[in-house]
Amino acid sequence: MNAEIIAVGSELLLGQIANTNAKFISNQLSELGINVYYHTVVGDNANRLKSAIEIAESRANLIIFSGGLGPTKDDLTKETIANHLGVSLTFDETALNYIEQFFAKINRPMTENNRKQALILDGSEVLANNHGMAPGMILEKNNHTYILLPGPPKELEPMFQYEAKPKLVARLNGESVIMSHVLRFYGIGEAELEHKVQHILDTQTNPTIAPLASDGEVTLRITAKSNSEQVAKDLIKTKEDEILAIVGEFHYGNNDDSLASKLVEMLLHNKLTISAAESLTAGLFQSELAEISGVSGTLVGGVVTYTENAKINQLGIEKSLLDQFGIVSQECAAEMAVKVREKFGTDIGVGLTGAAGPEPHDGQPAGTIWIGFSIKGYEPVTRQLKLSGMRNTNRLRAVKLAFSYLMRLLAEKGYEKK
Amino acid sequence: MNAEIIAVGSELLLGQIANTNAKFISNQLSELGINVYYHTVVGDNANRLKSAIEIAESRANLIIFSGGLGPTKDDLTKETIANHLGVSLTFDETALNYIEQFFAKINRPMTENNRKQALILDGSEVLANNHGMAPGMILEKNNHTYILLPGPPKELEPMFQYEAKPKLVARLNGESVIMSHVLRFYGIGEAELEHKVQHILDTQTNPTIAPLASDGEVTLRITAKSNSEQVAKDLIKTKEDEILAIVGEFHYGNNDDSLASKLVEMLLHNKLTISAAESLTAGLFQSELAEISGVSGTLVGGVVTYTENAKINQLGIEKSLLDQFGIVSQECAAEMAVKVREKFGTDIGVGLTGAAGPEPHDGQPAGTIWIGFSIKGYEPVTRQLKLSGMRNTNRLRAVKLAFSYLMRLLAEKGYEKK
Repeated sequence: MNAEIIAVGSELLLGQIANTNAKFISNQLSELGINVYYHTVVGDNANRLKSAIEIAESRANLIIFSGGLGPTKDDLTKETIANHLGVSLTFDETALNYIEQFFAKINRPMTENNRKQALILDGSEVLANNHGMAPGMILEKNNHTYILLPGPPKELEPMFQYEAKPKLVARLNGESVIMSHVLRFYGIGEAELEHKVQHILDTQTNPTIAPLASDGEVTLRITAKSNSEQVAKDLIKTKEDEILAIVGEFHYGNNDDSLASKLVEMLLHNKLTISAAESLTAGLFQSELAEISGVSGTLVGGVVTYTENAKINQLGIEKSLLDQFGIVSQECAAEMAVKVREKFGTDIGVGLTGAAGPEPHDGQPAGTIWIGFSIKGYEPVTRQLKLSGMRNTNRLRAVKLAFSYLMRLLAEKGYEKK
Repeated sequence: MNAEIIAVGSELLLGQIANTNAKFISNQLSELGINVYYHTVVGDNANRLKSAIEIAESRANLIIFSGGLGPTKDDLTKETIANHLGVSLTFDETALNYIEQFFAKINRPMTENNRKQALILDGSEVLANNHGMAPGMILEKNNHTYILLPGPPKELEPMFQYEAKPKLVARLNGESVIMSHVLRFYGIGEAELEHKVQHILDTQTNPTIAPLASDGEVTLRITAKSNSEQVAKDLIKTKEDEILAIVGEFHYGNNDDSLASKLVEMLLHNKLTISAAESLTAGLFQSELAEISGVSGTLVGGVVTYTENAKINQLGIEKSLLDQFGIVSQECAAEMAVKVREKFGTDIGVGLTGAAGPEPHDGQPAGTIWIGFSIKGYEPVTRQLKLSGMRNTNRLRAVKLAFSYLMRLLAEKGYEKK
């Protein structure tokens, strides 16, 4: 089985958004061992879409569409496929009910064009949309499999994973196994990591190893092929051990892990509570932690002290300390961590202060950041960063480095990683 | 002139990275008024690349390639095009010198495959690479224009902007002007907005109007063609006025504006200070505001009160109020807004509480959110949301709706938008 992904939407051709759906679907298909040879993007135009479908049919047997299932006139994926394949469109009652209930729930008028979203290709299996209105569908016709998915990623991703993927797996039964495993590293550059494991990369055949860097993080994807799942798993495990023997100190997690999810796991496992006092990050440290469901077992809260007065009045930091050392200082970061920990009665307090940019702040150049950590029973510890990114890259980088430092600090104090 | 973008790289088909190069180039081309009808992604495979080139030649006269110009065996874009067009490859002395100097500078041996990067298509103009080693090129042949760009965005983007674009502009001289203007709306669904302006959309010719929805926001892109910039501007302005006469109440900004940037502008313009007390959003409201440079003139700070105790101890909310009405309640949101405003001595206080999901919270279903606004001198105001997204979509949606409600509330009280 080999696949082509056709993304439909003029907004992609105008450069308003990137085709992240093709990335997501490709990644999922590669885990199933389905080869993807082409991605195509085409606008909201029936003739050009029809032509793209014909080309895809000549070179793939699985064709996956994203976008064009919405309520507007521009949305014409279903209509064009129906016309091309000579299949009619019929209303799916479940989807229609769902749409009606949705409008009742949000208390907004339902217009006629919203009904159009419940139309499906005759003979197709419906893929339920649990995060939006337009259902997806899967259709077999003329030795091709057609899968239609909605454009918004928050609808497409769960629909692919929980609705479409199991149906594809059923069709693949008996074919060879391809398995992937992603190792995640933080605190090391891509070139440096690659340099350290160069001899492993140079001799790769099966498993293969693909490095990738983004957002200050580096990942290594190990992919093994075999006839048996167990053999593929063993191949991956051997290679993983070999790599971690060299760069294990920078390894923080695997696959879908994030620094925030690993830190929350570690805090919950050790029954530690946390609070934060944030200046340049202005709540981002806490908000990133709160992305993880279950965080309420460790995150009590914290303060955002954006101004000098807020640091004095809300945290009780002495004005004399700020006058002597400055706001962007080791002393201020440490004091923020200690004060917020005491104020919120937590086991750990974190303080973040610095010059996010683009302007210098408090006499310090943009990118100068101090992070303080106060762990109950220990003296506070600080780390300085000198970043060269833009304002919001610096803010996010500071938060991720704070997560990473805190995990190492806790490990040093003997806390288990889980 | 119409264009197709062919991105070459197996990492795209494996879903390791998204095709952000196509987004970037498309956006740039749309500014030049060059239509892009297709994007294609193909792997590091000469036969499939050749087939993609043939298809592109049948439907576009400008073909832009990204990727496959590097030193490794996988990099075969130049070689495949040379072979397909019957053109030879020759060394470019400037590029070769640059590569040799680079290796001398980092004091590492230069391998033979690095020299390969200095090969260019015979008869092409070189596009200098100021951020890497592989030069780009532009070639005219058989009524087609071929542009080859390197894959890494930090090399491709400046090369396109400063090397390729001027050459394209020169080729376009005398053709018509195309201008775009994006109107941004919040608090109205895509279908509802389209329904309201349906008669305008139905009769569009020049300017054209393209709707797009993402992250709870709807945009209308108005694009006008003309021989003169002034006429294009006037065409856009007339259409804009017509649209805003109908749905102006939901319009918050244009082009690169964001809800946060417009709110910060309005607060600064009216010399109003702001603070926030956040539960489910856990700092996201403040952090999103702090993305805007200059926010320190209005954002004083705030608290994250994730637990019930934090709401009582840090904000001074009466336990009896929480016991009577619950944490996810109108009363709690209003009280959070009032208390944080008083505590931080600001003109405005905002309180956010709710069940982000996936679990219900405090007896309320996931997606139930209350936002409170306290403006100095006025009684607090609250808004309830019932969202149906996933945890972090709900958290972000709550923050954006809070920005949007607050701007309307301030406008109602007579504050100017700027």
